[in-house]
Parts: sequence; structure tokens; C-alpha cells
Amino acid sequence: MRKINTSPISGAQELLPEVQASFNNLKTKIAETYKKHGFFEIETPTIERTEILLAKAGGDTEKQIYKVIKTAESEDSADQALRFDHTVPLARYVIEHENDLSFPFKVSQIGLNYRGERAQKGRFREFYQCDVDIIGRGKLEIAYDADIISTLIDTYNSFELNTPVVARINNRKIIAGLLNALELTDQTSEIMSIIDHAEKVTPEQTKQSLEELKLDEKTIKNILAFINLNGERSFVIKELNNLEITDETYLEGVTELDQVLYLLESMNLSEQILADMKIVRGLDYYTGTVFEFFLPEHKNIGSVGGGGRYENLTSYFSDKSFPGVGGSIGLTRLFYIINEKGLLKAEKSTLLDYAVIPVSEHEFDEALNVAQKLRDKNYNTTAILTDKKLGSKLEHAAKLARNGIVIGEEEVNSKILKAKNFETGEENEINIEVISNPEDFWGDQI
Amino acid sequence: MRKINTSPISGAQELLPEVQASFNNLKTKIAETYKKHGFFEIETPTIERTEILLAKAGGDTEKQIYKVIKTAESEDSADQALRFDHTVPLARYVIEHENDLSFPFKVSQIGLNYRGERAQKGRFREFYQCDVDIIGRGKLEIAYDADIISTLIDTYNSFELNTPVVARINNRKIIAGLLNALELTDQTSEIMSIIDHAEKVTPEQTKQSLEELKLDEKTIKNILAFINLNGERSFVIKELNNLEITDETYLEGVTELDQVLYLLESMNLSEQILADMKIVRGLDYYTGTVFEFFLPEHKNIGSVGGGGRYENLTSYFSDKSFPGVGGSIGLTRLFYIINEKGLLKAEKSTLLDYAVIPVSEHEFDEALNVAQKLRDKNYNTTAILTDKKLGSKLEHAAKLARNGIVIGEEEVNSKILKAKNFETGEENEINIEVISNPEDFWGDQI
Repeated sequence: MRKINTSPISGAQELLPEVQASFNNLKTKIAETYKKHGFFEIETPTIERTEILLAKAGGDTEKQIYKVIKTAESEDSADQALRFDHTVPLARYVIEHENDLSFPFKVSQIGLNYRGERAQKGRFREFYQCDVDIIGRGKLEIAYDADIISTLIDTYNSFELNTPVVARINNRKIIAGLLNALELTDQTSEIMSIIDHAEKVTPEQTKQSLEELKLDEKTIKNILAFINLNGERSFVIKELNNLEITDETYLEGVTELDQVLYLLESMNLSEQILADMKIVRGLDYYTGTVFEFFLPEHKNIGSVGGGGRYENLTSYFSDKSFPGVGGSIGLTRLFYIINEKGLLKAEKSTLLDYAVIPVSEHEFDEALNVAQKLRDKNYNTTAILTDKKLGSKLEHAAKLARNGIVIGEEEVNSKILKAKNFETGEENEINIEVISNPEDFWGDQI
Repeated sequence: MRKINTSPISGAQELLPEVQASFNNLKTKIAETYKKHGFFEIETPTIERTEILLAKAGGDTEKQIYKVIKTAESEDSADQALRFDHTVPLARYVIEHENDLSFPFKVSQIGLNYRGERAQKGRFREFYQCDVDIIGRGKLEIAYDADIISTLIDTYNSFELNTPVVARINNRKIIAGLLNALELTDQTSEIMSIIDHAEKVTPEQTKQSLEELKLDEKTIKNILAFINLNGERSFVIKELNNLEITDETYLEGVTELDQVLYLLESMNLSEQILADMKIVRGLDYYTGTVFEFFLPEHKNIGSVGGGGRYENLTSYFSDKSFPGVGGSIGLTRLFYIINEKGLLKAEKSTLLDYAVIPVSEHEFDEALNVAQKLRDKNYNTTAILTDKKLGSKLEHAAKLARNGIVIGEEEVNSKILKAKNFETGEENEINIEVISNPEDFWGDQI
């Protein structure tokens, strides 16, 4: 009988071993793809001084923060908290280790973050975030924005989902320049927010929201036409140029967007990218390129990752300028969705290669010896060392491994071992030397 | 100028990228070796309800615990804390998921734990612990103790240290039985503690400590002879039998120790195991086999890992019996020691395979295209997309990668690419198709 509630805390992921293996498989693919694209992985502490975490944040973030407090009085009464993302600790890391880093610094971070969100299905309080960032010193070329996006596209591709993943890409300078040209800069944040929500409401509601800002009819029509603009590079850039806006920020944004899309095309990624004026991303620190990843066949899921360019992130920690571009995959949430919707092409088997099954205690030594020899050949191998009946041991073995090798008196004497595939029943002689069993421990003593 | 203190919190590991790669390399080897030995990895939340963590602990542990508190008032005002080891959460996991697990359950856990220890060199408050455990239902055969120890030996071997690692193995039943035979059970904990500290003090001090317990001279002599007993199986077991103690617990302990050592010998691990009566391990939950790992050439370092058999760990959560055996490597501390003492045989290069270096912006598209093709062939590749002079770009590239591929007008026209090894200077033509550059983006627009 249970004496105590043994469930994990609410809002945290806890998986059975085979599901955990599937999760870890994706995590490994992320790490490998990030590395393949030239990112160096770092790990900052999950606990930070609160003043670091709140240097930029505030508002909702502050409410969601988990403080960390040592129970007993001690010298360690510092004001500390669990990080809520990787971006703020990265800014601290770059300033702290500036002189030991080579810029542009291509860096990845895969680890747990914590947010005290209201608990609900698919929302997590303790979750994996997998980030790539490129940080320049003083300057960072726009081509690196394409570098980040291509890395994330390749990462999603490595998951082998049975549904396509597409990056919708925009540049905030375009909308900022447009509003400038329309003399609406006073209402930038309201209009950005309406665009940000356009996908979650009907076109009529979007129109109504714009009308509530008391904009004239022509302006509303222009903005609506603008936010519905999306498609491949050549089309979208032509349309944007056709608007004949001469605002410098606007033109800069269009050129940057054009460059980023062009470079992604050079990498043969045309089919997984789309220019889309609806993408603005709510967070306020983005200053240029912004992008979000979507599954076009599962529109209701919304974004499964995203990022953008930020020019000023380290400004809270240092006077120097470190512009950056970055993106992030929320793995815990994505994995939850993947499982709920059955999006993995084929579940990789998480079974071991071999289970070695001694018939009785007398063959424990032989079994462990054979298991060790299989491991030396890089096979994942377990030995079933229980004192149960053979049938029960085989049943346990079939749950753990693809192949079973039974070792009894006969096998020890004949020195011939057979591996049986549990699924097909097929038997194969395997070439592993059986030790000559100089002393039988259990024979002597039990 | 820095506006704020950007150092990480005290007691946490924060590494530069190349050192982090070396750390991650060991972490990957641990995961791979654990898997090779048939352990399935699970991950429990780092945050647990405090009542779970303190179900067994108390005393020092309670003082070292980090509580986690959400700052804003909300429904989430639960009494929660950061886990201080993997063992208590594992006990909870086994009880919670009992019906979905196949026993004996071979399980590994690699993750962060937290202890509010006094900060000092080589001591960490946030640290990686890498555990293997085997949990039986009702019963767990002694052979599994050998399975755990062999797994850890192979794991240390996978690190490729330039110094041997040895497991010193004992069984607590032997000392318990001995004290029973000597009618000293009232003083078990005091004597165990003296044995536990014997290595840290002089033989005279150990003798003095025993005298302070008011034991007679013959008993003291016997105990001192006993705790100095160590060596290979045949010798130690013979000596233990020579003591002619008939206490049942004693005999059981000797047989178990003999069995565990015999099975490790069957796995050809004789050179890395030692029976040693000094090993008792301070923690009180061990009930049989106990072991610690040492570097014989660096005795002053002390234990670099250990574990043992525990019969009653889940008893705080359930009435059912789940005996287990487990071991753990404290990776953060071990990595600190490895670096301090220079114990890694050869530092693996953490460099990327290739850096692609476009001469000017005109070759950014070609460079990214070539980089992507190299990645498709599984090479870790970065592209240097800065607008600096070629010399400066090459310097940056040589810091990141083993080989550089320069792409200028000439290479685009001739379609011949050469990879230069930065260390040897050797140049090799590489077989990557250069795209035909249908439009030169920067040529058109800039």
C-alpha cells in the first residue's frame, strides 16, 4: 500500500523508460544537428542571481519566476532564482567570458528552464528549451540570420516527422518602416499586437480591432492587404517594392528579408521557407529578422519554435554592443504535441540488442562473460540473473531486447551459442567464445 | 563597461566552450556505457514535493535543501524543493509506475542535483550525478551487485584516463556479523564510523579511537587486523574463513562478497577489483554489498564514486518490498579533479571538421551551399560570414575548425575547391559541387 502521494509535481514531464528513450533520441538529434552546423554547446547554471534574471524582464516574467531559498540560515542567503529562459544567462555569459570567446560566437544551449505558469494540459513549469544563437561583437552580418534558420530547419528534418515543417520569416523593420511612412508610429505597439493576434481571430475581428484605433478606411485597407501578404521570396519582395514606400527602415527591412531568403534558397531550402508579414513575435527585444516554425498540415498547433535578431540584449549588463540572432525549440512542449498527434514517422525501437539468459545460477558466470563480450563488440546487452523459471526469464528478456541467448549446461559443454530473434523466431549461431568454466561457483558452495 | 556583476552563482560549474565539450564528451560516454549494459534512462523532475525528499532524509540533508518558491501568489503555493540526489526520486518513480515497469528494473539517471553546501574549491551546489540502479520486486539476486559494479568499471574505462581505476568492494553483513560475534552490537555505529574514517587518519589514531570505546586489548587487535584486510578474492575470503566466526550474518556476507567478486572475475575484471574491509560507506541505507572507486596512483583524491545494496529504500513510500543495488558517479566533481590533475589520456579535439570561408559577400551563397553539402555528408561545418579581411577570417576559422575551404571568384569559376588543414598546411582538393551561381545577390543590389 502506498503511504504517501508518489505522483510527480504538476507541470513537469515524467515518462516511462521507452517514451523517455524516444524523447532522448530527439534531444540527441538536436545536439548533433546544432554541432553539425558549427555551434558550440555551453551550459550555464540553472540557478542565477535574481538581479541578473530581472535585469531586463519584469511584468509577467517576474510573476512566473521560481525563487530558490536555502532552508537553513547560512552564508548562502543570496537572492537567487531558477532561469526562465536561456537568453538572459547567455547575455551574462558573453559579458563574463568576452575575452575568452571568438566572435561571431556560435553557441547552443540545451537544458531545463522553469516558469511558474498556471498548470494546464501541454503547458509545463519545468521544460527543455534548445537554443542556438550567434553573437557578434559590435556588428553581426545579416547572413547569420540565414545560418540560424537553416540550422533549425535541419533540426526539425532530423526528427523524421510525418508532416512538413515550414519557417515563416519576416523582418520587423518592414512593419516599423510602413507605420513610419503611414505616420502611425504612435500606435506601433497596438498595431503590432493586432498583427500578432491576426491568426487567432477572424479577418473581421482584425478589421474591427484596427477600426477601434480610429484609423481611416484606406489605411485599414492597406494594413490588411499588407498583413495578408505571404509567399515565396520573388513574389513577396516584388509586392513589397510595389508599395513604393521610400522610408529607409522599410527599405532596409525588405533588403534584409530578401537576403535571408535568398541565402536559404542557396542552401536548397526553398520548400521549407515562406515570407509572411503576419509574423512579428510578441517579445519586444527583436529588432530585425523574426521567424516562427509551423506545421502547415496542423495549423491549430500554432508555432513549434521561433526566434529572431536582437541588437540590444546585453545592454543591461554592459555598455558594449553585442548584436545577436537566435532561435529556440521548446522540446518538452513539442514532444508532447508529437505524441498527442502521432507525428513521428516511425518509432525507433528502444530495445537492447541482446539479452543473455542463463538457465540456472550455474551459468551466471558464463552469461555475464558472454554479455561482456557482446558489449565489447558495441552491442547493448543485458543479462537476466533472476532465479525464476526459464519461461518467465524469456518473457522478461523479450520485453527488454530484440534477441535472446539462452545459456544452459548444453551450451557450456558444446560451446555453441544461438541467438534467437524474439519477433521473428529466427535462430542464428553466434561467434562468441564461452569461457571454459574452470570452477563452478554455485556448484561448489550452494 | 560592465553595469552589473556577471559572474555565475558560487558553487556552480560554468565552462568555456572547449572545456564544456570535454565535459559533455564524458557525459555522453556515461550514457552510452550505461545503455550498453542494458540500463534504461529515465528523468524525474528536478523539483519534488518537500515531503517526498524528506520522507527518509533529515538532519544534514534537510539543512542543505533548496526550497523553490513561486514569487507571486497563486494556486502553486505547494511546498517544493530541488532534489539532492537521484535515489529518493527513483524510489518515488518505482512506486508510482510499478505496474508499467518490468522487474528487475535496470535504470539509469543522469542529471543535476542541488545541495546548499558551504562553498569551497571542488565542492558544488549544482552538480551532475550519474546513477545506475537495479530494482527488484520482492527479491533481487546478488549477481546484480556484480552487474552494477562491472557497469561502473566499464564507464570509468571509457573515459580513457591515464591512471587506473579500482573498485574496492565489501559487504556490510561481514562487519555486522563480526560485531555480533564479538558482542559489540551496541557500539555498531561508533565502530562503523571509526572504520569509515580509518583512511583519513593514522593507524595510531584509529587505535586510540577504538580504545576510547573501552574495548579490551584483544578485541581492538582483532578489529584492527580485520579492517586492514584487503586484497584479491581468494586471499581475503580465506582469511575471513580463517577467523572461524559462525555468526550467520557474517557467513552470509562472506558468501555474498565471494560471489560478487567471482562474477566480476568471470567478466575479466580481476585487475580492477579488490576486496577491502575498510569500505563501509557512511550513508546508513546500505544493507549488503558496498563499494567505492579509487585511483590507486592518486590516493589523496579519495573516492570518485561508489554505491551498494539497499533493501529498504522504498519503505517510506510503500509497504511492498523493492530491494535494489545502485552506484553513482559524481561527474561535476570528478571532472573538476580530472582537469586539476591532468588525468585525461589525450584531450579529444573539440574542433569542427570544416570552416568555409567566402572571400567576399559575393560568395556567401556559395559558401553556405558548400557548408550545407558538407553537413549532408555528416561533417561538422561552419561558414565565416563576416565582412572582415580574409586574413582575419582565416584566423577566426582556424580557432573553430581543423580544415578551411576558401571560396573566392576563382573557386566559383573553376569549380575546384581545396581544403587546407590548418595544423599541417596540407591542401586537398575536395569533391563538392559548387552551385552555378545563377544570380549574384550582392552583385545586383549592393
